[in-house]
Amino acid sequence: MTYCVAIKLDDGLVFASDSRTNAGVDQVSTYSKMHTFETEGDRIFVVLTAGNLATTQAVVNRLKRDMEEGVEGSFADVAHMSDAAEYLGRVNREEQEKHSEALSKSGIVAEATLIIGGQIQGSEPEIYRVYPQGNYITTSQHTPFLQIGESKYGKPILDRIIGPSTALGDATRCALVSIDSTMRSNLTVGPPIEVFVYEADTFAFEHYLCLEADNAYLRSLTQAWDENIKKAFVDLPLFDWEAAGGRKKRGTQFHLSKRARKAAR
Amino acid sequence: MTYCVAIKLDDGLVFASDSRTNAGVDQVSTYSKMHTFETEGDRIFVVLTAGNLATTQAVVNRLKRDMEEGVEGSFADVAHMSDAAEYLGRVNREEQEKHSEALSKSGIVAEATLIIGGQIQGSEPEIYRVYPQGNYITTSQHTPFLQIGESKYGKPILDRIIGPSTALGDATRCALVSIDSTMRSNLTVGPPIEVFVYEADTFAFEHYLCLEADNAYLRSLTQAWDENIKKAFVDLPLFDWEAAGGRKKRGTQFHLSKRARKAAR
Repeated sequence: MTYCVAIKLDDGLVFASDSRTNAGVDQVSTYSKMHTFETEGDRIFVVLTAGNLATTQAVVNRLKRDMEEGVEGSFADVAHMSDAAEYLGRVNREEQEKHSEALSKSGIVAEATLIIGGQIQGSEPEIYRVYPQGNYITTSQHTPFLQIGESKYGKPILDRIIGPSTALGDATRCALVSIDSTMRSNLTVGPPIEVFVYEADTFAFEHYLCLEADNAYLRSLTQAWDENIKKAFVDLPLFDWEAAGGRKKRGTQFHLSKRARKAAR
Repeated sequence: MTYCVAIKLDDGLVFASDSRTNAGVDQVSTYSKMHTFETEGDRIFVVLTAGNLATTQAVVNRLKRDMEEGVEGSFADVAHMSDAAEYLGRVNREEQEKHSEALSKSGIVAEATLIIGGQIQGSEPEIYRVYPQGNYITTSQHTPFLQIGESKYGKPILDRIIGPSTALGDATRCALVSIDSTMRSNLTVGPPIEVFVYEADTFAFEHYLCLEADNAYLRSLTQAWDENIKKAFVDLPLFDWEAAGGRKKRGTQFHLSKRARKAAR
């Protein structure tokens, strides 16, 4: 499986993706799901991929070759981000169709879902989710982020934290926490985590990180989050039926179970 | 859809469930998904239901009638919680089969998934998840909770907080936060939230709550959680590329986006 998220903010865009692919539990591999394309100073695109690995690799190859060869309607010359999404949807559908008949006989699905984001000189930064059928949606003021893959575990924290005015750094931390939560709850999502933070109007790949599981920043972030989440529980209001002295006893710890309290005596 | 969770702790059991059922977005109703059965001082059972509403209603009716009539092998006389799970699985399969042929012609699935928990005099409290096929699984030291229905949104917070030694009150708050997060991210899960906290060896229905959306405790809990989660973000370590003075400026607020900072000048 996969988990990728892209966020559109007033200040720019945040992209984050895991790197685990699996075809059955004994065929687990590591592949980057974040692909970048640019014409210096004029346009910058980021594509995040989920779904059939052969399809997504074929799609990314086509995108690269078309851009290098300056194919009309490719990333080389599209005038708007929505045109880029339209083009990506077309390439996605074409690559799926090449093998879909043979694949369906084996019960395999060729589908891929993608996110494309970026900026073209003269327009605002935008992000789009592109479906296997080639159609696509973008964000709104109330829906500032798009996800693909195993997206449910990591959605609540994004729903709570992210708004259009969230700063790029906070949004990036939130995306990392969202992926970390997903990795803890689901084995098919795994490190390294790739992050790219795009500051609007810079047309530059400045803030890119590839965080392995033992990366010092990632470890300090996830550890701090784990501690802070536990602290966040301590101050929650007690139920009537809980011991009247409960609040005083708690300090910065959870309640001890009765069994643990007995053992401590 | 539905979201129910049951937790097995050293001190007892926690059950929580939402109350929304839907057959399409224009047929949304409110039904309790928590059903309780007891023989005073001897045995106590809680059944949580997810899936086809006609099936779960038929199952609960059978459970009640069998118990009232003292049917052999029913909740009235099973000797172990695993026997109760076995019996519940049999009833579930039988009720599904009654209409499954007709339903499948209409493309409707009769399946139901249930959680049963409780205690029988002389045994420990236990919980089981019962599948549509009638088989069942229980908890372990490393997997102290079971979920049914729309379970992914609310799983990360349970994974972080719940262990066997968690106190009943903390586990109950965690279950409520888990359901609240799910309700925010998914419209098919909705209030009122029912909660039952069973203290081991009491064989009593002491701590039962049915919390409507405007319940004062639920509102204070979800509001406190929302604030605490946001605070939990403030102390997270900054990236190198964030403004050097960033940490000082943050205080207990998030970073302001550049656009917001400009507007404030």
